[in-house]
Amino acid sequence: MSVEDYGLLAPAWVATGVAELVDDAALVRAMLDVEVALAEAQAELGVIPGSAAAAIRAAAVPGSVDVAVVAAGVRETGNPVVAFVGEFTRAVGVVDPAAAEYVHRGGTSQDILDTALVLLCRGVLERVERDLLVCAEGLAGHAGRYRDTPMAGRTLTQHAVPVTFGLKVATWLQLVLDAVERVRRARAGLPVSVGGAAGTLAAYREYAGDPVDATVRLPGLVAARLGLVGRVFPWHGVRTPVVDVAAALLVTTGALGKLAADVLVLSRTEIGEVSQQRVPGRGVSSAMPQKHNPVLATLVATAARQVPPVALVVFQSMVVEDERSSGGWHAEWQPLRECLRITAGAAANAARLVGALRVSAETMAANLRLTRGAIVSERVMVALTPLLGRGQAKRLLAEATADTERTGTDLAHTLATALKEAGVSGPDLSDLLDPTGYTGISGPLVDTTLARFTHLKEPQ
Amino acid sequence: MSVEDYGLLAPAWVATGVAELVDDAALVRAMLDVEVALAEAQAELGVIPGSAAAAIRAAAVPGSVDVAVVAAGVRETGNPVVAFVGEFTRAVGVVDPAAAEYVHRGGTSQDILDTALVLLCRGVLERVERDLLVCAEGLAGHAGRYRDTPMAGRTLTQHAVPVTFGLKVATWLQLVLDAVERVRRARAGLPVSVGGAAGTLAAYREYAGDPVDATVRLPGLVAARLGLVGRVFPWHGVRTPVVDVAAALLVTTGALGKLAADVLVLSRTEIGEVSQQRVPGRGVSSAMPQKHNPVLATLVATAARQVPPVALVVFQSMVVEDERSSGGWHAEWQPLRECLRITAGAAANAARLVGALRVSAETMAANLRLTRGAIVSERVMVALTPLLGRGQAKRLLAEATADTERTGTDLAHTLATALKEAGVSGPDLSDLLDPTGYTGISGPLVDTTLARFTHLKEPQ
Amino acid sequence: MSVEDYGLLAPAWVATGVAELVDDAALVRAMLDVEVALAEAQAELGVIPGSAAAAIRAAAVPGSVDVAVVAAGVRETGNPVVAFVGEFTRAVGVVDPAAAEYVHRGGTSQDILDTALVLLCRGVLERVERDLLVCAEGLAGHAGRYRDTPMAGRTLTQHAVPVTFGLKVATWLQLVLDAVERVRRARAGLPVSVGGAAGTLAAYREYAGDPVDATVRLPGLVAARLGLVGRVFPWHGVRTPVVDVAAALLVTTGALGKLAADVLVLSRTEIGEVSQQRVPGRGVSSAMPQKHNPVLATLVATAARQVPPVALVVFQSMVVEDERSSGGWHAEWQPLRECLRITAGAAANAARLVGALRVSAETMAANLRLTRGAIVSERVMVALTPLLGRGQAKRLLAEATADTERTGTDLAHTLATALKEAGVSGPDLSDLLDPTGYTGISGPLVDTTLARFTHLKEPQ
Amino acid sequence: MSVEDYGLLAPAWVATGVAELVDDAALVRAMLDVEVALAEAQAELGVIPGSAAAAIRAAAVPGSVDVAVVAAGVRETGNPVVAFVGEFTRAVGVVDPAAAEYVHRGGTSQDILDTALVLLCRGVLERVERDLLVCAEGLAGHAGRYRDTPMAGRTLTQHAVPVTFGLKVATWLQLVLDAVERVRRARAGLPVSVGGAAGTLAAYREYAGDPVDATVRLPGLVAARLGLVGRVFPWHGVRTPVVDVAAALLVTTGALGKLAADVLVLSRTEIGEVSQQRVPGRGVSSAMPQKHNPVLATLVATAARQVPPVALVVFQSMVVEDERSSGGWHAEWQPLRECLRITAGAAANAARLVGALRVSAETMAANLRLTRGAIVSERVMVALTPLLGRGQAKRLLAEATADTERTGTDLAHTLATALKEAGVSGPDLSDLLDPTGYTGISGPLVDTTLARFTHLKEPQ
Repeated sequence: MSVEDYGLLAPAWVATGVAELVDDAALVRAMLDVEVALAEAQAELGVIPGSAAAAIRAAAVPGSVDVAVVAAGVRETGNPVVAFVGEFTRAVGVVDPAAAEYVHRGGTSQDILDTALVLLCRGVLERVERDLLVCAEGLAGHAGRYRDTPMAGRTLTQHAVPVTFGLKVATWLQLVLDAVERVRRARAGLPVSVGGAAGTLAAYREYAGDPVDATVRLPGLVAARLGLVGRVFPWHGVRTPVVDVAAALLVTTGALGKLAADVLVLSRTEIGEVSQQRVPGRGVSSAMPQKHNPVLATLVATAARQVPPVALVVFQSMVVEDERSSGGWHAEWQPLRECLRITAGAAANAARLVGALRVSAETMAANLRLTRGAIVSERVMVALTPLLGRGQAKRLLAEATADTERTGTDLAHTLATALKEAGVSGPDLSDLLDPTGYTGISGPLVDTTLARFTHLKEPQ
Repeated sequence: MSVEDYGLLAPAWVATGVAELVDDAALVRAMLDVEVALAEAQAELGVIPGSAAAAIRAAAVPGSVDVAVVAAGVRETGNPVVAFVGEFTRAVGVVDPAAAEYVHRGGTSQDILDTALVLLCRGVLERVERDLLVCAEGLAGHAGRYRDTPMAGRTLTQHAVPVTFGLKVATWLQLVLDAVERVRRARAGLPVSVGGAAGTLAAYREYAGDPVDATVRLPGLVAARLGLVGRVFPWHGVRTPVVDVAAALLVTTGALGKLAADVLVLSRTEIGEVSQQRVPGRGVSSAMPQKHNPVLATLVATAARQVPPVALVVFQSMVVEDERSSGGWHAEWQPLRECLRITAGAAANAARLVGALRVSAETMAANLRLTRGAIVSERVMVALTPLLGRGQAKRLLAEATADTERTGTDLAHTLATALKEAGVSGPDLSDLLDPTGYTGISGPLVDTTLARFTHLKEPQ
Repeated sequence: MSVEDYGLLAPAWVATGVAELVDDAALVRAMLDVEVALAEAQAELGVIPGSAAAAIRAAAVPGSVDVAVVAAGVRETGNPVVAFVGEFTRAVGVVDPAAAEYVHRGGTSQDILDTALVLLCRGVLERVERDLLVCAEGLAGHAGRYRDTPMAGRTLTQHAVPVTFGLKVATWLQLVLDAVERVRRARAGLPVSVGGAAGTLAAYREYAGDPVDATVRLPGLVAARLGLVGRVFPWHGVRTPVVDVAAALLVTTGALGKLAADVLVLSRTEIGEVSQQRVPGRGVSSAMPQKHNPVLATLVATAARQVPPVALVVFQSMVVEDERSSGGWHAEWQPLRECLRITAGAAANAARLVGALRVSAETMAANLRLTRGAIVSERVMVALTPLLGRGQAKRLLAEATADTERTGTDLAHTLATALKEAGVSGPDLSDLLDPTGYTGISGPLVDTTLARFTHLKEPQ
Repeated sequence: MSVEDYGLLAPAWVATGVAELVDDAALVRAMLDVEVALAEAQAELGVIPGSAAAAIRAAAVPGSVDVAVVAAGVRETGNPVVAFVGEFTRAVGVVDPAAAEYVHRGGTSQDILDTALVLLCRGVLERVERDLLVCAEGLAGHAGRYRDTPMAGRTLTQHAVPVTFGLKVATWLQLVLDAVERVRRARAGLPVSVGGAAGTLAAYREYAGDPVDATVRLPGLVAARLGLVGRVFPWHGVRTPVVDVAAALLVTTGALGKLAADVLVLSRTEIGEVSQQRVPGRGVSSAMPQKHNPVLATLVATAARQVPPVALVVFQSMVVEDERSSGGWHAEWQPLRECLRITAGAAANAARLVGALRVSAETMAANLRLTRGAIVSERVMVALTPLLGRGQAKRLLAEATADTERTGTDLAHTLATALKEAGVSGPDLSDLLDPTGYTGISGPLVDTTLARFTHLKEPQ
């Protein structure tokens, strides 16, 4: 009945140990945890006997439920809870026949499954945060180390003006910190689901009896046991909590995807400014002995391509009809799981990538000289504008840089000639044309970023 | 060169007055505002003469820029700023020839366009918030009015257990409030973009001279003039602010889409629990004289179908290469505009929908009786469980409700017979089978929701 | 290393037996098939010894490859083929040490994996076609049976004009036939991938020696063994074949999703025109004994919500850089598998749904009378237009139908009054107002559809 | 009421002249064409007087309809047709009062709008095909010219093995031809929509009278006048035709997006193998005088990022409920228009890009030498395998290429040393290591592609 998934087609998360956080076994464990928390909360409220709650806890062990039976039930009833409750009730009955009546009291399938999925989300968000912080630590190290290391800034694929590698890394770090903030916020908002058949908590109340107070307190007590937010208003049809998780995952893979995209560019054979540390067997090809592919960046890039479309299913599931929907809710589950494990895999691979990143300041310096000065033509224009006016300065520089490109000479040379012809004297070209002197406020921007990281690391 | 868009194919926003907030004319005005703010900030820092800033402000009037020329420039340079700056510089030169040199000093295309787009976002987010609050006000009225009005709760399209219409409305209101919170947060985070050609602010600094202090202060001063966040770290490649806006829009249309989906169900000819107020010409058909289509709900539903996929383009644009990208950034603009105007249209239409909603408590009551008692079988099961055990109680009720459905008799009847056969006596069936007595804590859940709205309306 | 997937979160395909068609075990079998076909084709060309090909075939048995080792390799090299080839080479060496050299001769990872995925596509497309034809057969039966059974046609959720149930079913059948055509076309176009490291087939040629003829023939020979199209031009960077498959899957779930959406509407408690045959345990709720949820339609609806966004990843993977890409190709695999199994699950569930569909012509007739005649106001307008002009006819009817709705009387009555007031006499109202007489050419449209099905079933 | 759209935020189509093909004015013209064709077909069938059809044709001129009035109607009725018919009926009445009754006879909004949209699709698909063929012509020229020009093949961003530029261009050409085929197929399948209020053609039939023959013939006659397919079965709820168009557009931008992605890589400052012809003002920057951005490739890349998500709305609109839906149909229009104009813009820009492509065979040759021989290590492995066995050959080459990379010497040197140490003699290294000799069957693959193009250009 089950298939084994090794991750052969899932480069985004294979062999990172995250699939286990959200697989069917983890889901069943989480469903058991929810039923136990519900029973114990009801026992605390005096709605069921303490002995029943104890038996329910005792029965909630792996193996109490035949997962194949539960799976068969999904096709018959549309969700795994109906058959799961049957299986679990049987198991509780084995422990204590009298307790079996008290399983899942007042509960509805969506309460159990939504809360269980939220527990899986929690586990993954915590793992993701941890790996993002490992990334951030590594990036902070690089940013500090290369704070003032000049390299070519590139826009629309062409050399533009110099930047520093520290600034480039700080850009990645800003994104990672944006992701950390959103992951933390989503984690902090994860709610319990206690609504009953149509979100009125009617059966919970029917069992609890009047007054309503015990029923109003129930969600909070269940939540406390599970480490979740004790939201009273049912969210069967208010899917914002799941959307917030998906949005946080999407920002995470977006952030890491930008990092990977840049690493892939900088790793190109012709650019060669960064590379991944050589590890035996990593990045090799089946056919080409010379190959060392930037495989970690590729794995992360793959994750970033997959998450937004898959997350879309979750976003679109906000629009559902009725108290509980016929298809919209059901469509969320697998895409949510997929986004969770892809993102967790991406964070794990990004942490490894950052750790394995090797930087060649020499190649950066060499590439910076590739246009023979043209990379600082913006700066020269600033210097010439007061002398020639902006329009003429730009025309003169456009021609001089074109000459440089065509003839292979240095801009210093073509520019000196052009200035002489234009009858302009003054600027010290050798100083102006030194690309390492035109990195703006890259250094302070790195410092700002490191300060943000320090702040964000502090205990909340 | 331009095409006129009346919105014939845009039911999501046609005739709501929102297209004007984000059209090309609005964009050009915003770009002018950004150039003025930049010049005035630089004047405050002493980087350009005050007279130049004054001339720049004076020239920044509608008509100073030929939009057709700017559009032609987009195809040649990939963005509207290059030609816009040319046009605007010319206009400034007419006001004050000496000032022309000072236009766009140190600026790069992305600084101007990103900041201008952020200004459009601000205008729309404020409009959306206003209309969401109008919705919320109307929904709060309905929720209070119908707090205790019972109706059939439906799950997987079938009658489940009773709810109240107040609770249903509260569900919509919770979603609207979720949207308000996210719209406000996105609005509060809108940043200025001041980065220069590759995000180092190098040209800004070159003009400002050492020390770096004036350059570090520049973004804050520009932002203050525009009412934006004065973020120093450039976000050319850190697209989280735009993603946050898109996510807020997506939650908004998701929330309103759920409302519309429910209204469409409840408006069905066979259900008829709600309808839209009759207004001459609204909801009519070209061919069928009897028709009063739920057109406002349809317009909102359409919006909710469109936004998530279109927003995806924005989400995916987080992954861009280099200091500024070749295609990723450019792909954001039109989808962002589309999401803005669709969402603003949806909010406007939802406000009108809520205002026009007519509720039939009588039809709700009639539908509640449609299953002749079966809608409260869950409650009866709660009552019978102590007498029969859950398993037998469920079987007995499944048979009794099936009999009811097959024979057209009341559950009171089939159940009484079944209980007699089972030798069970006790429960007062007439009381148990009254659906209006089984609405759980619907009332308190409505109250909670209204309290949340009151809190959220208070001055922040 | 592996996780077990029972499908607990995959209502779209759980327990339909399709997951096994595309799981990791199936993939490994397919990869073995590809290596065998490659070796045998090379043996036929004389490029490798026949004995080597025989040993390779002999070694290609389940268990020859340790899947966990292959999975670990995916994280190191980015794809499963590098480690798979290592494992398989070892296994061949056990059979015949001399043959090991001849495994994967000239091959590149993408050749093997793309061809293996194509084999999985083939298996699923064939299964999908079979289940679609089962659906079609069932729908054709319904369409014929209810060819002339009138029911309310609904537009924008409101009763519009009468249709027949046969026509409604014919609409579903047209969609299913559209899907069959596209699935067949995609199946017929599935190509082998034989390109070598960068799509030049250079290593294949190097082994084959000059002239090029043997190399040019190689793809066709491999394809013939696998039942695929022998495309010579490599498609490492030409992803149209995969896009065509994804598009066919998307049309399939779109077609079945429309069927499910209609069934869900018609199954509503208040509408009740169709239902699913009662089967013990199917559609039951964990809490509500009366419930018989339309679970099969829900499973299909879920599938239709998931496939388009997931397929998007495949569509977007057309845009990849270089001879073979760093992330784009890798992103295709899991979404393609997911679309395959979701669609196959949807087809299986749709076949079961069609078989279980129960139709109530009585309820259809009752609902048709619900508006007391207003459902044929279009027809009355046609009759009155020559007498009153269209404008006045429409106004008169709009008022009469509004009266009918407000007062609960029949349109025959309000209309007779209105016509008398307008001084019009003539039309035989009782005939005109009979909804069963206004079904247009529904019958011939059903016949057309059945003819299309008959044609499509004929041997191609 | 209308906004002017110059395309400032639409780099994908700005200034290409395609927006006019699908704007509101074009839509109104198409709607007029549909009403005329319907009237003339009905006149041919004798259902309306010939004089009425003539008046309807005479009135169908630009300006007969106030578009602002139509737009206002969209918000009230959900589609533009209701108000359009009112406006047009008035205009016909001015020409011939007696004819006004005969406008839109039996028609429903969806018939008119769907057919009008199909006419817009036709115009765009024809334009796209034309521009694709221009692209193909240009690519065919390049493919032939550079059939045997060697360059570095790149996989996962790293030099892999040599290819020829002709083969790379052939890859692009194959994609363009795939797109042409799909565009043609979608064009050939565009159907007329003639269904009436609920797809039964009842009102058409009511006007036509019995027998059904005239009604059955109607769609074909309308279609013949408009150059469309005369499909009898209504497709109000069978959205495959629109999906087929969207899929063809998606394949087109996918194909062109691959071309653009490759051009952007090859244009990088460090790679420099292709560039765009210099045209004054094209690709310039507002700040950097030296810049010549690959702007045409950027415009095409942008288009390819936008179309798949936007097309998703169309794909998802297959799933709609009832005879005509409340929101699903309406959601299609604007995304379909957007996909049409983006794709047409992309085709126009791609045609310009191909025409402006400049190729540097010298830089290709220089880059090919960049790894000092390692790019052909696969070939050397083929040669050494018989001598050393594959395993040892691969190890030896991995070490030799690593030495080459580390020491900056040629592979010829490190390899000679390694072979001597291994006691192997034989292969002529200088020949083996010549990258220009290892391009596999690139030439024949180019020839195959050119033959496909020739075949596809022939009159169908």
